[in-house]
Parts: sequence; structure tokens; C-alpha cells
Amino acid sequence: MTYKLVLLRHGQSAWNKTNQFTGWVDVPLTEQGVEEAKNAGRLLKEKGVLPDIVFTSLLRRAINTANVSLDEADRLWIPVKRDWRLNERHYGALQGKNKTEIRDEYGDEKFMQWRRSYAVRPPEIDPDDQYAQNKDARYAGDPVPEAECLADVVTRVEPYWESDIVPELKSGKTVMIAAHGNSLRAIVKMLDGLTEEEIAKINIPTAMPLVYELDENFKPIKKGGEYLDPEAAAAGAAAVAAQGQK
Amino acid sequence: MTYKLVLLRHGQSAWNKTNQFTGWVDVPLTEQGVEEAKNAGRLLKEKGVLPDIVFTSLLRRAINTANVSLDEADRLWIPVKRDWRLNERHYGALQGKNKTEIRDEYGDEKFMQWRRSYAVRPPEIDPDDQYAQNKDARYAGDPVPEAECLADVVTRVEPYWESDIVPELKSGKTVMIAAHGNSLRAIVKMLDGLTEEEIAKINIPTAMPLVYELDENFKPIKKGGEYLDPEAAAAGAAAVAAQGQK
Repeated sequence: MTYKLVLLRHGQSAWNKTNQFTGWVDVPLTEQGVEEAKNAGRLLKEKGVLPDIVFTSLLRRAINTANVSLDEADRLWIPVKRDWRLNERHYGALQGKNKTEIRDEYGDEKFMQWRRSYAVRPPEIDPDDQYAQNKDARYAGDPVPEAECLADVVTRVEPYWESDIVPELKSGKTVMIAAHGNSLRAIVKMLDGLTEEEIAKINIPTAMPLVYELDENFKPIKKGGEYLDPEAAAAGAAAVAAQGQK
Repeated sequence: MTYKLVLLRHGQSAWNKTNQFTGWVDVPLTEQGVEEAKNAGRLLKEKGVLPDIVFTSLLRRAINTANVSLDEADRLWIPVKRDWRLNERHYGALQGKNKTEIRDEYGDEKFMQWRRSYAVRPPEIDPDDQYAQNKDARYAGDPVPEAECLADVVTRVEPYWESDIVPELKSGKTVMIAAHGNSLRAIVKMLDGLTEEEIAKINIPTAMPLVYELDENFKPIKKGGEYLDPEAAAAGAAAVAAQGQK
């Protein structure tokens, strides 16, 4: 008995395009992002990877990527669960800022630390900042972070994985998680048992279905899983790694 | 304490446009249908009617109407529940047939009986018909009807209303149901306590939010509820009533 998991990062968002740190800011997909999601859905259908349930964050770029891809794969009717624990990493005071400008202002080392270190948080967001989420109705009753590092994301994703996602896998369902670069990196780190140094080098491309087959202990049969379109995924990952460069 | 319920019929579908009986056939929205759904979302936002949870059928025209309208209303992140019990009435052997042609072939009386009688089912669909759902994965384990009258829809909607929808209303949530002409007519009949003759005259326009405020016994404060845009809803209902006419 093995279990099947599909990880799907959202397609290009408005702020991927303009090269801004996004985090918990609820920006829409671009037209290209919608096309990427359609393409992901076509791949799922062609390869016969048919999700039985989908998990999403509370952010529209992930939700719409799930909706568009599942519609394309004729699976729009499957059950849905949403949770803030699958949200992107909260980028603190960097939310809304241009990546290249931040790199110029603070230098390469600080920039890469904020983007890829495991335990260093970016500066906290001001509660009155236009890009803060502390007054957003969708998080009423939940703690809204002021900034997160990847370790913080792992801390919130892991218990949700155990409590909500594992039981669905155990019941034999193919589970899709439509989420974000860093919430998916948290899951990849956990599944593949990566060190802090190893996860720093993992870049997840937008809207490329990544399939993990898991053994009875929820360990990957193949470390790193398999992208349904490996060539396109490699090109996409390289583009993510290059963000903020001139 | 009162409860708030929003009923939303899907926007124009491909077969609304071509005037075909649809039932359980999973046709997409037209571009106009998507625009109608956006407009519904704008109305929800303008009038401050903000759903906390959405119920949908298993059919993409209802699911996408929910998705598009909620995205427009900044509520795409709310929890979702889907169930076949909210599906359109199964139109049996009429599924896929042109409404005007059926009217010409069988005459006005039969045509109106199939469309608007309470207890007369259309002819059953052949299990091998291209528009039958008996082999559709989404209904695996559930009974797939071969034809339904409105009474059959009431029989399946009522227990689902009690078991799944009422508890959400009781918890104080504003509930939206994105569904179909006849599954919504079943709910309206139940809520307003209409007779079989009265419900025959009720036509529900596409993508017009209909808001019911319910008292502690789940009876409407105002019979028939209130459309957020009453004029547009009246015009839409007249258009539905005229379907199949030359």
C-alpha cells in the first residue's frame, strides 16, 4: 500500500510578475498564472493523476490555481479544505517591497538570509501597514504572524499535516495541496528529511504538479518526488532561484 | 436571533445558451455566465452580504459561479462543502435535447408537465446514453437517478438541508448555496411552505443573489426572501419562464 500526494504551487501572481515580496498579501493570479494553472490541470489529466481531495491556503492565488487546474482535469467537484496553515510564509515588513530594491538596499547577504535562511525572520510588519493582515476577517480567532522564517512555517504546517492531511492519505485518497513556495518547501523538508542547508537549495516552480508516492510510514518512495513535466519544472525552479537578481 | 441564507443559481451555462435540457450533464459557464457571477459577487460586497460558508452541487456551473462570485466579493477563502444532493434535477432522457424541439415534438402540455409539474418524471435516460451519469466517478457509491421530478429533488434536498445546512446556520454563519434552478426551487418550496401549484410558478433567475432572513424556527421573516437587485431578478425570472417558447 502506497499513498499519493500532489504538491502544486500557485501560478504566476501579480506580484511574482512585478517582483514584489508577497507573503500573506492576497494578490490575484495574472493571466499567465491562469494559463499555467490550466496547463497543470491538463498534465494531471493526461498522466491520470486524479486528486480525490484538495487542500488550499486561504489565499486566492492558491485557491484559484486549484480551481482552474481541477476544472481542466474534470475534478472540480472533489472535496476542498482550506487552512491558513498552508499560507505562504509571512514576509513581515518586506511584504509589498520590490525584491531587487531590497537587495540593493540591504545587500546580497541579508537578502539571501531573508529569502533562504531557515531560522532568520525578516523585520516585523507594522500593525498599521497597508499590507498587514491583523485586521483581516479570515484570520479572526487565529494568531496572525508579524513575520515568519521557514522554521515558523514548518512549526505550523507539521501539526496540520498530521491532523488533517495524513488521515485523508490513509483513507486511500489521492491528495492535492495547492499552496505556496514556502509552505510547500516546509512539506518537502519534512517528507524528504532535509537539513536546513539542503532545503535552502530547493526552489519550487509555479504551477508544476509534483507527485510524491509515500510508503506506509509516509516516507517518499523516491526522494524529491517526481514532477509530471520534469523539464519545464527544472526551468521553472531555476527562474525562482534567480529572483531578485538583476 | 435570525439566520441569513443566500441562494444563488449558476450563471448562464453553455446549454442555457443553446436552449438544451441540462440536468446532471456537467456543462461549463459561458463568458456571459462568468460575467453574471462577477456581478453577483459585486452585489454581495456592495450590500455587505458576506457568506461565511458556501455549499455547492457537484456540477462545475454551480461551483464556478460560487468561485467567481466569492472571489469578486473577497470571500474566496471561506469553507466549502459540495454534495450531489444540491445537483440540478436529473432530466432523464431529455438531457441534451433542445427545449423547443421537445416542445414541438411532444406538445405544450407534455412539455410544461415535464418542466413544471411537481410529481411527473420525464422519461428515464438509457444507461448507455452519452448524457447518462451512471459511470461518472463523482457519484461512485451514490445512487444516480435515471430521471427526477421536483418531488424527487425535494426528497433528496430536505434531509441534506437538515443534516448539513441547518447546523451551519445555527452556529450563526451566513450560508450561501450555489446551485440550480430546481434544487433551489426545492429549498424555496420548503422554506416558504409553498403548495405544488405555487412552486410551479416560481422561476429563479441565473446568478441573482436571493437573501432569506430566517427566524428561530428557520421560517422566512419575509416570504420569498429578497433579491439584492429586485429589478434585474424580475427580468431574469421572466426570461426563465419563457424558455422553450418560440
